[in-house]
Amino acid sequence: MSGLQLPGEDALIATLAGCLPPSRHTRLAIGDDAAAIAQPDGSLLLITTDLLMEDVHFRLRWGDLPALGWKALAQNLSDIAAMGGTPTHAVIALGLPAHFTPEEAVALYRGIAEMARESATDVIGGDTIRSSGPLTLGITVLGQVSPAEILTRSGAHPGDALFVTGTLGRAAAGLRVLDAGRPAPAALAGMVAAQLRPQPRLAAARDLAGSGLVTAMMDLSDGIATDLHRLCLSSGVGAVVERAALPVDQGVIDTCRWLTEMGTPCEPGTLALGGGEDFELLFTAPADAEDTLRARIAPLRLTRVGLITESTELLLHDGVNVNPLNWGFTHF
Amino acid sequence: MSGLQLPGEDALIATLAGCLPPSRHTRLAIGDDAAAIAQPDGSLLLITTDLLMEDVHFRLRWGDLPALGWKALAQNLSDIAAMGGTPTHAVIALGLPAHFTPEEAVALYRGIAEMARESATDVIGGDTIRSSGPLTLGITVLGQVSPAEILTRSGAHPGDALFVTGTLGRAAAGLRVLDAGRPAPAALAGMVAAQLRPQPRLAAARDLAGSGLVTAMMDLSDGIATDLHRLCLSSGVGAVVERAALPVDQGVIDTCRWLTEMGTPCEPGTLALGGGEDFELLFTAPADAEDTLRARIAPLRLTRVGLITESTELLLHDGVNVNPLNWGFTHF
Repeated sequence: MSGLQLPGEDALIATLAGCLPPSRHTRLAIGDDAAAIAQPDGSLLLITTDLLMEDVHFRLRWGDLPALGWKALAQNLSDIAAMGGTPTHAVIALGLPAHFTPEEAVALYRGIAEMARESATDVIGGDTIRSSGPLTLGITVLGQVSPAEILTRSGAHPGDALFVTGTLGRAAAGLRVLDAGRPAPAALAGMVAAQLRPQPRLAAARDLAGSGLVTAMMDLSDGIATDLHRLCLSSGVGAVVERAALPVDQGVIDTCRWLTEMGTPCEPGTLALGGGEDFELLFTAPADAEDTLRARIAPLRLTRVGLITESTELLLHDGVNVNPLNWGFTHF
Repeated sequence: MSGLQLPGEDALIATLAGCLPPSRHTRLAIGDDAAAIAQPDGSLLLITTDLLMEDVHFRLRWGDLPALGWKALAQNLSDIAAMGGTPTHAVIALGLPAHFTPEEAVALYRGIAEMARESATDVIGGDTIRSSGPLTLGITVLGQVSPAEILTRSGAHPGDALFVTGTLGRAAAGLRVLDAGRPAPAALAGMVAAQLRPQPRLAAARDLAGSGLVTAMMDLSDGIATDLHRLCLSSGVGAVVERAALPVDQGVIDTCRWLTEMGTPCEPGTLALGGGEDFELLFTAPADAEDTLRARIAPLRLTRVGLITESTELLLHDGVNVNPLNWGFTHF
């Protein structure tokens, strides 16, 4: 194809954004992980919001309400991290279904509180209503970053190397284990934990932003295939991903082996490329920055997974062939 | 009774807030219309969030999607106004049901854009997902206010007079007209408009905050009975409301007459006291400030409706008897 197309979700968001009056004071707006607002003291205020709904983002039958609260906040914190920022405050809007007890609401909030404490984020308000449908969480997080250190999706240059932190496919593997609905080997518990209690890369993101070497960054919420698509569109570039280089977690391989034995086959590379919610960082930097950046975020793993190109095509090199990379999760 | 009790919703929110780690940087937090965060330049950043759901806050069969977008933003703006603040930015999270078309999403957004333009608020981001249930809007608004002018619910003193802006019961009357499901007299169109497209009192709120005379303020989102309850609890005071003084809108009286003729009787005073979503301002100030404050917000109507007392009881004086004032809308 001659250029990248917006995933359905992004196309709708772009249409909706087109309805709005022009922004007056905003440095960055719709289309990045968070919006940035210039403050009187020269710093930037970051803001991001996410809506999480039962049976879209999670299932109540998983039964771990504190984990749900944790994850809802964690994924917003990850958006702040993706901009190179530090989260400061959060507000929480809860729509509680009719069957939800106060004790269940407290369990949910305990997980929110735990993630808030761990990330030094102040939860300062919210709204709690009786939902007419599913359990719904609307979370908004504020953060801060200096104009010198803010990272966006739009700074990637042809020739930059493409990096990811950590390993890929863990959260997607955990989701498959949960959906399998039968007792999984203890060795797969880490995959389930990655799905239920993801760890936003707050410290690594700050270290990367502070290096001055990173040209573009975002977090992996919908899988590298979809999210790299977004980064390339924002930067007006293309990319070639080396399939063999992808840091597929060993637990993902073990999960797929177990699921295949159970009669529901899955392929580790597909989970690593297309599986969402890893909340690892995807970023670009000059290739010769690799060692410096690896040292900065150690012991967190850093992997070079590809190259930014001028062509505006998104390609996957599987060792033999080069094909368009075109999958991943979108809501529409 | 010997003291005020929290409505169910507020009690749950207080329980949930108790789960959170202590706030570190926040000037005001959970329990007011908005939270306030001290900024490096000495000003205060205000933040408020609301979750709106189909069949809790609105019905899609009313058919006016731009009005729904307008109202969702307006009610958050009203929370910023209630603190004496000026709204600056908003983020919008949308959960769109499966049957929702892109055109319907655009119609909804047009209303958001209209209210944003009218209030000079920048909509700077959001999240758009496919809802597993009802149409859901999660809106967060930022604003600013100086520490010298911020108004909260907790500053009312015994002896202060109690005031409201505008007239009461219009939105509740409009809801009854919409729910009646039959063509209403043209004269009641203003009530329906008050329900569908409420006007946040942004300019009046700033004028009141700038006067230096107001001791406590909030907006009327759940009806004066419930909201005055909250103001009194926050301030540790009581109040006596003069029923005859309540500025019941003539349209509310006309609506109740029409509905009673239709066989579904309603009482204007009940709508004025217990009906929510008027988004007028409820505030306290020394009684001798009345003329000054009236001049400041003219031509918007100002009415003195009662007196703040030391007793911590909330009472209604109906001209003959004094009884506990104890009704209104809560979610739980």
